[in-house]
Amino acid sequence: MDCMKLCIAPIGVLHKDEQGVRVELEPAYAPGLLGLELYSHVHILWWFNRRDTPEDRGRLQVRPPHRGTPGPMGVFASRSPSRPNPIALSTGRILSVDRERGVLTLDWSDAEDGTPVLDIKPYSTGLDRVTEAREPYWHDEWPHTYEEARQRGE
Amino acid sequence: MDCMKLCIAPIGVLHKDEQGVRVELEPAYAPGLLGLELYSHVHILWWFNRRDTPEDRGRLQVRPPHRGTPGPMGVFASRSPSRPNPIALSTGRILSVDRERGVLTLDWSDAEDGTPVLDIKPYSTGLDRVTEAREPYWHDEWPHTYEEARQRGE
Repeated sequence: MDCMKLCIAPIGVLHKDEQGVRVELEPAYAPGLLGLELYSHVHILWWFNRRDTPEDRGRLQVRPPHRGTPGPMGVFASRSPSRPNPIALSTGRILSVDRERGVLTLDWSDAEDGTPVLDIKPYSTGLDRVTEAREPYWHDEWPHTYEEARQRGE
Repeated sequence: MDCMKLCIAPIGVLHKDEQGVRVELEPAYAPGLLGLELYSHVHILWWFNRRDTPEDRGRLQVRPPHRGTPGPMGVFASRSPSRPNPIALSTGRILSVDRERGVLTLDWSDAEDGTPVLDIKPYSTGLDRVTEAREPYWHDEWPHTYEEARQRGE
């Protein structure tokens, strides 16, 4: 893999502790938060830093950890942290935006404390909300909206 | 920006022409598509290759091109191609998955022909579908679901 082709670097770090979930931007990036408080939800792109290994990046099929799943699935049919470019995508509800300090607090994240953050994008319903999405049968018992997932504590 | 911190490379290229939209993976990555046909929609992470310039990457606020918007918005409150890490996120409906050839066809993409693709993730409703999303007033007249956006041809 030619690392020099595309250049990316963290814009900040996600922290998760008893106070909740917050994205702390490097101070230079804080002006990029202007107006984000007009949206209720964001996408966070972050780096699977604990899975940035040759083994994880070279794995192309994974066995889903959930009950009732069939055999292996391709990593592009999975949200597994094992993937060629270990970039994660999570949606979160905005609790507060502190543009002065460059801090965004969220209701939830599946990233671990200390995770490098690559980008923040506003959740735009016309782009991101799919009404008629079909999923494999093992999703049948899972939440079917973000809100339902949070209510269930998943 | 320290380019060596995080290493990414394209997994394939998005082509868009009179035949439609297709993601052509490098052959080595084709096994990663296993099982993707069980989902109806995907997220595509791609590279804003035409905006990978120091000016675009250094810009932290942009003026939205749409009518009725107020002054500048932070890039993290925007889907603008100007952003520190020029990674784009688009959702698309799957038309076909050809795992032998490593080709995924989609109903739509806002990426241009020849765009480098970084990742493909299945659209999972419990993670990605937000029922109660709030957006700024200039979204009021815009589509509020992916399906509505496609019907309007946007």
